[in-house]
Amino acid sequence: MERRRPFSFAKSLMFSFRLLAADAHTAARRGVFTTPRGDVQTPAFMPVGTQGTVKGLTMDMVRATGAEMILGNTYHLALRPGAEVVQKLGGLHRFSGWDGPILTDSGGFQLFSLAQMTRISEEGAVFRSHIDGSIFELSPERAIEIQEQLGSDVAMVLDHVVALPNEDAIVRDACERTVRWAARCRAAARRPEQAQFAIVQGGLNPELRAWCAAQLAELQFPGYAIGGLSVGELPEDMYRVLDGACPHLPQNAPRYLMGVGRPEDILEAIRRGVDLFDCVMPTRNGRNALAFTDRGPVRMRNLKHATDDRPLEEQCPCPACGRSRGYLRHLFMAGEMLGPTLLSAHNLTYYQRLVTGARDAIANGRFDEYHREKQHGWESGDA
Amino acid sequence: MERRRPFSFAKSLMFSFRLLAADAHTAARRGVFTTPRGDVQTPAFMPVGTQGTVKGLTMDMVRATGAEMILGNTYHLALRPGAEVVQKLGGLHRFSGWDGPILTDSGGFQLFSLAQMTRISEEGAVFRSHIDGSIFELSPERAIEIQEQLGSDVAMVLDHVVALPNEDAIVRDACERTVRWAARCRAAARRPEQAQFAIVQGGLNPELRAWCAAQLAELQFPGYAIGGLSVGELPEDMYRVLDGACPHLPQNAPRYLMGVGRPEDILEAIRRGVDLFDCVMPTRNGRNALAFTDRGPVRMRNLKHATDDRPLEEQCPCPACGRSRGYLRHLFMAGEMLGPTLLSAHNLTYYQRLVTGARDAIANGRFDEYHREKQHGWESGDA
Repeated sequence: MERRRPFSFAKSLMFSFRLLAADAHTAARRGVFTTPRGDVQTPAFMPVGTQGTVKGLTMDMVRATGAEMILGNTYHLALRPGAEVVQKLGGLHRFSGWDGPILTDSGGFQLFSLAQMTRISEEGAVFRSHIDGSIFELSPERAIEIQEQLGSDVAMVLDHVVALPNEDAIVRDACERTVRWAARCRAAARRPEQAQFAIVQGGLNPELRAWCAAQLAELQFPGYAIGGLSVGELPEDMYRVLDGACPHLPQNAPRYLMGVGRPEDILEAIRRGVDLFDCVMPTRNGRNALAFTDRGPVRMRNLKHATDDRPLEEQCPCPACGRSRGYLRHLFMAGEMLGPTLLSAHNLTYYQRLVTGARDAIANGRFDEYHREKQHGWESGDA
Repeated sequence: MERRRPFSFAKSLMFSFRLLAADAHTAARRGVFTTPRGDVQTPAFMPVGTQGTVKGLTMDMVRATGAEMILGNTYHLALRPGAEVVQKLGGLHRFSGWDGPILTDSGGFQLFSLAQMTRISEEGAVFRSHIDGSIFELSPERAIEIQEQLGSDVAMVLDHVVALPNEDAIVRDACERTVRWAARCRAAARRPEQAQFAIVQGGLNPELRAWCAAQLAELQFPGYAIGGLSVGELPEDMYRVLDGACPHLPQNAPRYLMGVGRPEDILEAIRRGVDLFDCVMPTRNGRNALAFTDRGPVRMRNLKHATDDRPLEEQCPCPACGRSRGYLRHLFMAGEMLGPTLLSAHNLTYYQRLVTGARDAIANGRFDEYHREKQHGWESGDA
């Protein structure tokens, strides 16, 4: 089903992935992903801007966290305000005010997690909107068309996500469909300024993951994601999936672990060769008064912070750490919007500091040491 | 009851009010209020930071609206987190991150509007917290002590606010008590770096307002407020109260109209000689999707904005006006926090632009023209 497109040469000029360093003791890589809207230093963490906004922050604040690339959710934007509306308003960059690279997912995960009464056939999916129950259709071709309307820099192919654990036959069927849909997505692309990443499925089965990775690699996508994780499986299972998939993905393309995860998951994935991440955890946990720090998580509503004049973290440049723990606690106790805003900014800054530290460590040949230092700090639990 | 305090000379050096221009056709004044934490150009609008935060904005964003001075609410802060906690955390400036001048009210208005089962005697007030029903006491002396703990630059005397309209005897009794309490507050002051403003009460009776203003003027406060308004009375009644009170207040002290109001109220008050304002309207309306503009209010949820690529106002420098109306509508329809944040920033910027324009107009001898232009724009209703 794969077709050569006339703009494939132009595309290869617009997007590239260059490896700058490889860790000697692990599979960790340090690279640069070049897009028409700028470079992204990898490993990179992309804040999630589901509905055209990273919840609670202005785009200036998102930029100040250190982020270079953000994610938008096709499912949400297609339902509200609608891809045509975003297109009329100048595309997702102009709409949201983020002028750096944007990756959009395809809606595959939301068909599984959020949509109601989803029916999937070889042609595509039919589902009801979780907002108002109205009926939508999403095929591989439509998923690409919507993402082209949104105008993201990286589009994801439509994948078939299933619950885990699940019967082997169901997992295999969805995985094979995902490969077929990836080829249809690739054939449907019309915009040279948008790159497409394929998505490796295959549940918790490392062999199936390896097979899927190899199949997709033959289609020569400019990037590859590992999807269908972060659905409640054990961390060890996720790491095994990465062990299965990563070696079968091309060295010269970025690898993106979708929707993951905790700081410890991110370092475990980087050591297995993953380059890109996104997760709602920094913002969602921030809104719920939980802060990430190098000494483990801090629950901001705890009474012990009431008269604590120290910042969350001494060396953190974020706006939350310009204030006292006592003030941050007060904001949450008083139900003030600024609490979620400041803690989201802190957590996103924390994730950026984490991947920046990983990049430096890989470049300096000490990723394993960095990983152990971070793990040790998190386990100390004395934040 | 008034006593000379040893630091009265020091205080006069720390605070001053200088008139730069007076309008020829109205009572409008252009001045500078000097405080230990910087100058405030008047007429000025103070954003309301009730609980140590201007709702939805970082202090950097508040500063970017053009605000030079903000307000904090003694009642709210005394109840939560407590004045002692704020003091332990370095005072309200360090606590909140606002390093410019801060004015705190006394709690008098909240005793009337928010507290439960308030009993007022000559000694002071006893009431139940609206948060948890616990019992608090607030006397003139305690109101000053709390504000000194908070460390604001300007403290308000405790006043006795009553519902309007009301029986003459009740209004008069509360007004006379307010004068006696003002003297007690002045005698209770212990900090030369904090100025005290008196509050004119007297309901809707211009003669009683005039009497109260004259009584307080004799006590020689560094500033005077007109209180007990914005409680549902007609705008014309409020303007009449200003006509009664302002001529009896000293020329060489700032005049502050508490809790007012709509843009049109602010210009009407400026033309009657008022210098300072505060109001929750820009932030509260912003949170509720209503934007102020020179062409009247804009209801941001309205369907007509859905694909409107224009900003709210072409010349506005605020972050909301860097985006399209369509995007702002989307944020509110999608329930995103950024909608309230951006519209609060816009409305506060609008109020700052309004008073900046008034200052320029007074300085250039064309306040009346400015007032008519604004009124004409608002009434056009074609925003």
